[in-house]
Order: sequence, then structure tokens, then C-alpha cells
Amino acid sequence: MKRKFSIVSGLLFMHLLLFSQERRYDVVFDLTGNDSIVQKSLLRWVDGILKANPAANLEVVMYGQGIDLVTNAHAYRPDLITSLTAKKQVTFVVCEQALKNHLLDKTDLLPGIRTVPDGIYEIISKQADGWGYIKVAH
Amino acid sequence: MKRKFSIVSGLLFMHLLLFSQERRYDVVFDLTGNDSIVQKSLLRWVDGILKANPAANLEVVMYGQGIDLVTNAHAYRPDLITSLTAKKQVTFVVCEQALKNHLLDKTDLLPGIRTVPDGIYEIISKQADGWGYIKVAH
Amino acid sequence: MKRKFSIVSGLLFMHLLLFSQERRYDVVFDLTGNDSIVQKSLLRWVDGILKANPAANLEVVMYGQGIDLVTNAHAYRPDLITSLTAKKQVTFVVCEQALKNHLLDKTDLLPGIRTVPDGIYEIISKQADGWGYIKVAH
Repeated sequence: MKRKFSIVSGLLFMHLLLFSQERRYDVVFDLTGNDSIVQKSLLRWVDGILKANPAANLEVVMYGQGIDLVTNAHAYRPDLITSLTAKKQVTFVVCEQALKNHLLDKTDLLPGIRTVPDGIYEIISKQADGWGYIKVAH
Repeated sequence: MKRKFSIVSGLLFMHLLLFSQERRYDVVFDLTGNDSIVQKSLLRWVDGILKANPAANLEVVMYGQGIDLVTNAHAYRPDLITSLTAKKQVTFVVCEQALKNHLLDKTDLLPGIRTVPDGIYEIISKQADGWGYIKVAH
Repeated sequence: MKRKFSIVSGLLFMHLLLFSQERRYDVVFDLTGNDSIVQKSLLRWVDGILKANPAANLEVVMYGQGIDLVTNAHAYRPDLITSLTAKKQVTFVVCEQALKNHLLDKTDLLPGIRTVPDGIYEIISKQADGWGYIKVAH
């Protein structure tokens, strides 16, 4: 009897876990391209999600050519990037390996951009934490 | 002893859950581009999966330029879209925000197309439900 | 009391499961394009991940035009593909349906390339097993 109750409790708990996970709005965006339409779409989505979901957690991970979005030299709408990085619900993250491949360092990035040693590992870690994953490409 | 048995039962149950999940063929496709090769590939995959896996559940979520696939004005192979939407295993879903951005409304879509307020939330909800995720792009 | 302990044990176990999952570096890459920049990036990532993470498990699933990466006729850097396939941590997998669509068979592939009946099913099975998912596109 106790055993059955334990299993039922476990199931209920797992269900709650799954259910609460569905209610979260946690997304990691994977950006590797520098197409301006793709960049523009991404920024519109991030902005729109934050306005509609104040509790959302968004992270944009950039590697490959995706880093152009947040470099001083190539940033599309640096003003918007800066206003978004000021919010605690969104983080822009650049892969340090990608920086090195482009002969850049952290000083070439807009203020407030985080870096990680490995962008792909950052993405799959978020996936393992239950975050949604959206590849930004078209 | 009872406790050990509870834990073992829990583990077995979790294993069954994970195992049965692997046997499902539930996929959410993320389409944001309107490239004709990409559209053609997607429709061939959906058609092929349904023929080989009658129990599959497929959902194609369109936002950004991806909505062209199912608009009256731009649809690629509207005949095939209509025959696929008639099957209960496949759903075509358009983001209402994307419709608005393109100055369109539901009457501009082929018959049988579902809409949701937020395409990205639709996708991450399916992911949280254990559906596979395939970004359609090349 | 025993029941509470069972639940707590179950939670601890689940936490360990989730925690250990975060430490894994298991990634399935989804490649459907034959753009040379995308192919070059993918090979650099695979090579770099393996060097930095000897315990990583990487699988590259190719379908659509992605199969060009490993065909005798079109392979980009066949030498690098061959040296990577020799490592047990990385597997290159081609969808047999894609081969057929391109009027090719297994003899048209570089040595050491695995094939599966359905590339999309291979990818979502890995996702269900807890592997990270990276769409390779830009």
C-alpha cells in the first residue's frame, strides 16, 4: 500500500515537473549566420517575447558568422542590442573560439555581451536544463 | 525493503517512460524561410514519414517568411497541403504575429490551417512535451 | 516516514540523472545543406570539440543535400572525413531515403559512413536519448 502510494506520489511529482516546465518560456536561440533578414527577425522575436512574457528567459548564443550581430564593426541595430542587454531576462553570449577564428577579442564586442569558451556546449547545456531550442536561420 | 522496492519501481517506470518515448514519432518542424527547395523537401519528408509511420504526429509551425508555404497567394503545392491537412496526424500551424507582420489575416491562408498567438511558444511547448524538433533550413 | 524517504530518494536520483546529463557532451548535428561555408564550419566544430572533449559523442546526420559532404563525387575534405570516421567518438550517418532521392547508393559514399533508413527518425531518437541537437545552417 505504501509502495503504491510512493509510486503515485512520484508520478504526480513528475507530472507537476513536466507541467510546470511547459509553462516556462525559456529559450536558447542558436545564431550562426549574418544575413540581415535573419538578424532583424531574431531581434524582433526577442523584443516581442519579452514584452508579452515578462518572466521569459532568453539567451542568444552566437558562433560562426553569427557573432557579427554584436561586434562594434558589424552590429545590426547596436542601440537595440544595448537596450536588450540591459534587461535581466535576456543574455547575448558569444563563443570565444568563434571570436578567435575571426581574429577578434572581447573589446571588439558591444558592451554587456557575455562570452563562453564553447558556444555549442552552452547551447546543449541549456537544452539539458529544459530550455527550448530555436535555430535562427531560413 | 519497501523503500528499495519503491525506488526500483520508480526507476523501471522512468525507464519505460523514456523507452516508450523513443518509440514515438512526434516531430515539430520549424519553418521560417520561403526557399522553394526547402519547402519542397519539407513536404516530401512529411508525406514520406506519414506513409511509413501511420502513428506519427507531425506539426509544421510557420513564422517569419515560412508562412508563404500556406498562404493563398504564395503556397507551394496547395493541393498537397490540402490533402495533408485532411489527415489527423499532421497539423500546419501559423503564428498570428507573423500574419500581422505580413499584413495578412486568417482568410489569406489555405483551408484547414491552424493559427496560434506565438509560433515560438508553440514550438518550445512541443519540445517540453517530448516531441522531436527539426529546424527546416539549409 | 518511509514514504517521504522514498520520494526524497527519488528526487535525489532524478537530480543526479539531470545533473549527470548536463555534464555529457553528446550532440547530434542535423545537416541538410551543401553550402561550403556551412560544411567547413561543421567539420571545424567537430574537430575542435573532439580535441577539447575526448569523451564527447558526436553524430552528424545528413539528409537532403547534406549528403554531399560524404559522397565520393562531392565530398569537401574527404581526407578529414576519413580521419574523423576513424575515431569512435564521431559517426557520420546518411539517410537511405536521401541517397535514393539522389539516385545514389552506399557505394557512392566515402568509406566508414553509416546509413540509416530514416535520417529524421535518427535525429529525434537521439534527442529522446538526451543528446543535444544542433541544426547546421546559417
